[in-house]
Formats: sequence, structure tokens, C-alpha cells
Amino acid sequence: MNALPARSQERAVTLGALIGVGLGPGDPELVTVKAARLIGEAKIIAYFAKRGRASHARGIAERYFPKVREELPLLYPVTTEIPFDDPAYVAALAGFYEESAARICAHLEQGQDVTLLCEGDPLFYGSFMHMFTRLEPRFRVDICAGVSGMSGCFAAARQPMTWGDDILTVLPATLDEDTLAARLAGTDAAVVMKLGGNFAKLRRAMQRAGVLSRAIYVERGAMAGEKIMPMSEKLDDAAPYFSMALVPGQGRRP
Amino acid sequence: MNALPARSQERAVTLGALIGVGLGPGDPELVTVKAARLIGEAKIIAYFAKRGRASHARGIAERYFPKVREELPLLYPVTTEIPFDDPAYVAALAGFYEESAARICAHLEQGQDVTLLCEGDPLFYGSFMHMFTRLEPRFRVDICAGVSGMSGCFAAARQPMTWGDDILTVLPATLDEDTLAARLAGTDAAVVMKLGGNFAKLRRAMQRAGVLSRAIYVERGAMAGEKIMPMSEKLDDAAPYFSMALVPGQGRRP
Repeated sequence: MNALPARSQERAVTLGALIGVGLGPGDPELVTVKAARLIGEAKIIAYFAKRGRASHARGIAERYFPKVREELPLLYPVTTEIPFDDPAYVAALAGFYEESAARICAHLEQGQDVTLLCEGDPLFYGSFMHMFTRLEPRFRVDICAGVSGMSGCFAAARQPMTWGDDILTVLPATLDEDTLAARLAGTDAAVVMKLGGNFAKLRRAMQRAGVLSRAIYVERGAMAGEKIMPMSEKLDDAAPYFSMALVPGQGRRP
Repeated sequence: MNALPARSQERAVTLGALIGVGLGPGDPELVTVKAARLIGEAKIIAYFAKRGRASHARGIAERYFPKVREELPLLYPVTTEIPFDDPAYVAALAGFYEESAARICAHLEQGQDVTLLCEGDPLFYGSFMHMFTRLEPRFRVDICAGVSGMSGCFAAARQPMTWGDDILTVLPATLDEDTLAARLAGTDAAVVMKLGGNFAKLRRAMQRAGVLSRAIYVERGAMAGEKIMPMSEKLDDAAPYFSMALVPGQGRRP
């Protein structure tokens, strides 16, 4: 006698779980105690990387890896070579995410848990979210929050960012110049992400919004080769994709 | 022979450092490996608390405390009893922060490091910032980033928050209803903090902005007694001060 329908029972007994683990901004010591434990207990460790490059996520987490494990690298076919608004980019990524979810799914269906490493915080502009939405309807998904890349930059730049009733706006630099200028003018504090080829446009938008003089440029925050300077003193337009700009708030401060 | 002026030499040799340590959203396991190490090495551990109440920061960090240490509790004279825009509130807090900085300063001047515990991320709406601005001109200040309270809520609510080019706006619910409604209508994703007595006003603002149906209420995220529900299903207006509301983004997602 068994009150559970066969399908439910099978699901409860045999399916594995997806475990999304935030790794923080880049310094392996900024991994949480929980993330370090989850990684150390992992049997199958998955991570995203650009094809032909070392995985940044793996590099952060490696010191916590258990001796015995299987690794599941998920290698992006393209990243920044094609513009984001190009339908070819969206199509290539959609196919890649489908395939990655299928590879994870194959393990989950065999009852194996998969631990997916996520730079920064998994639910804040993270690749993990693409796996979450695809797999969450069928499988148990656990999520371990991480220090976001922007929190790492606040500390690296030593900038108190938001005070009292300050409004903070987080903007991708991929937006057009008019939008950037209007948003920067209409907020107390701002974080601008994904600078890359958008640096010159962002500098113009900051100038128009009147915030250039208090903006800080942060490259590789909380990582080796960290570079921090006032935006106004950065004379060239070269910026890695994952660099950020901070406009600290100036709100109520007793 | 010594090339350094006497003052600089004295400063380098004898002054202590203030170490601001982010503790994350509440779960002691969401403390970073670095924060756990810094706390374990601390000689003097300072933390904020409301007078007559246990310190929440101390409760998160206690498992990492070294056996031998001095504790320096900094006890708020008032918190939410007086409205924020009341000059009496600002004056009371300013005096309290001055006195707290002076107490920390007394140790730093004797060459003793002080480790100040900070809930969430130290530079994101954190009390630490009030000590940082007062002590940073004279002393070395180190800052260890933490998982922000809002990242803890994203994971607790299992909500992917920002996709692709989404704009995220972080709003204190203390703002007036018109401002809240306009800001909520004009962003892709939102986090509303400091709900407390502002819940009914926020619900009206969300209704006006057309985001009520996809908003999530998070109380005590990543802590014991966590409560998560759609905003639209929360029928009463009671909310603790540190509860949050999330409006997840719906942006580009291949």
C-alpha cells in the first residue's frame, strides 16, 4: 500500500537538486562560509566559462573543491563579439542555455545533485538565472546568496554608497546616452555596470548629468590588478566589460 | 638618522586600525570566509545595538568570536520612535555617532585595532559609514564587503531580480507616495527597503505604478521566522522596519 502516486514518489526519491552558489566579487576569501561548505560537499561542479579561457568562477572556488568530484564546464559559444541587440546573439545564447540546462538536467534525472558556481550574487544579473528558470519547474533548486560584484567595488573604492533615504539606481552602460544621462541626473546614487566599449558614452552622459566630478571608476574590484580612480582622471576610453562606475550618494547623514 | 617626520612615524607605529566587517543578511553561515577570519583575529569587537536589546550583529557573528576579546557595544539612544525628518532625531543620532566615534578613537589612539561588526554590506545604508567618515581622515580603515540584506532577500524569495539591460532602483519606503509610485513605474526592477510603518503607502504606490501583482514581500529574509508572500496577498499593513519588497525585472533573457 502506498498513498503516493508513482510519479510523485519517483520524483521524491530519485531526482537530484540544482544548487546555485554565489562566489562573490572575485577574492576567494569573499566566498561565504556556506558557499565554501556547499562546494566542499559537491559531487558534480558546474561552471560557465568563455570557450578557450579559464573559468573565472572556477578560479575563485577552486580552493574549496573536494578532492573527488566531477566537473561540468559550460562553455559560452560567444560573449561580447556580437552586439547584444543582434538577433544572432540572442539566438546563439538561447541555444547555449538550452544545451547547458539539458546537460545539467541529465545528471539531475539520474538523482545526482549539480552545484553550479556563480560569480557575484546568483540572482543579480547572473547566468545562473537562465538555468534556474529552465530547471526550477521540474527540480529542487537551492540558492546560496553571494557578495555582489558591486558590493565588492564599494569596498575596493572605499566609498559609502547610500545614506538614509538615498535612492540608488543600477544601470547597465549598454543603455543609450540620453537614457544614461537622464537616469544619472535623477538619482541620488548610481552604479553603472558593463562599461566595456561604452566608456566614452558613459563619460559624456555623466558630464551632462553633472555627476562626473564625483564618479569613481573601478576595474577588477576585489581582484588582482584592481584599478580605481576618479572618472574625471581617466583619460582613455578603454574599460573591461566587467568594470563599473560608482556615483556615491550624499544623503542624510547625522 | 630618520627621513620620516616625527608625526608620520608616530602614526605608522602606534595608531590602531578600524576594521569594518560586513556580516551578511542574518544567517551566520552567510558570513564570508574573510569576515570569519577577521572576527576570529579581533581583540576589540564593536557593534551597534538598540539600548536594552540584544545586538543583531553580535548574534550573527558570535560563533566566530575568539575566546579572549574585549567587546565595545555602541547603544543607539533612539531608533524608530522619532520620525526621521524630525530635527530631534537627527540631533540625537549625530550626538550618538560622535560619541561612538570617540569611544572607538580612544582605542585606536592607543594602538589597538577595533573590529566593527556591520549587518549586511558595510557601505550600503550601513551605520558603519558614520564611523568611516569620522575616523577615516585620521586612521587606517579596512573594509570587508558582505552579502547585502537585499541579496539575502533575493535568494530567500527565489527571485531572479535583474536580467540583461534591466535597470534596478533601490528605494527607501520612507519616500512619499507620489515619488514611490513614479519611481516604481519608471524602472524595470525595484527593491523597496525600510517598510515598517510605510506598508500601506507602498501598497498604494505599487497599485498606481501597476507593479503590485508581481511584487514580493520579504520579512526576515535569510533569518529565523522568515516570511515571504506576494504583496497582493498580504492583507494587513504590519511590517517590521527591516522588511523589504521586491519587484523582479523581466528584461532580455535568451
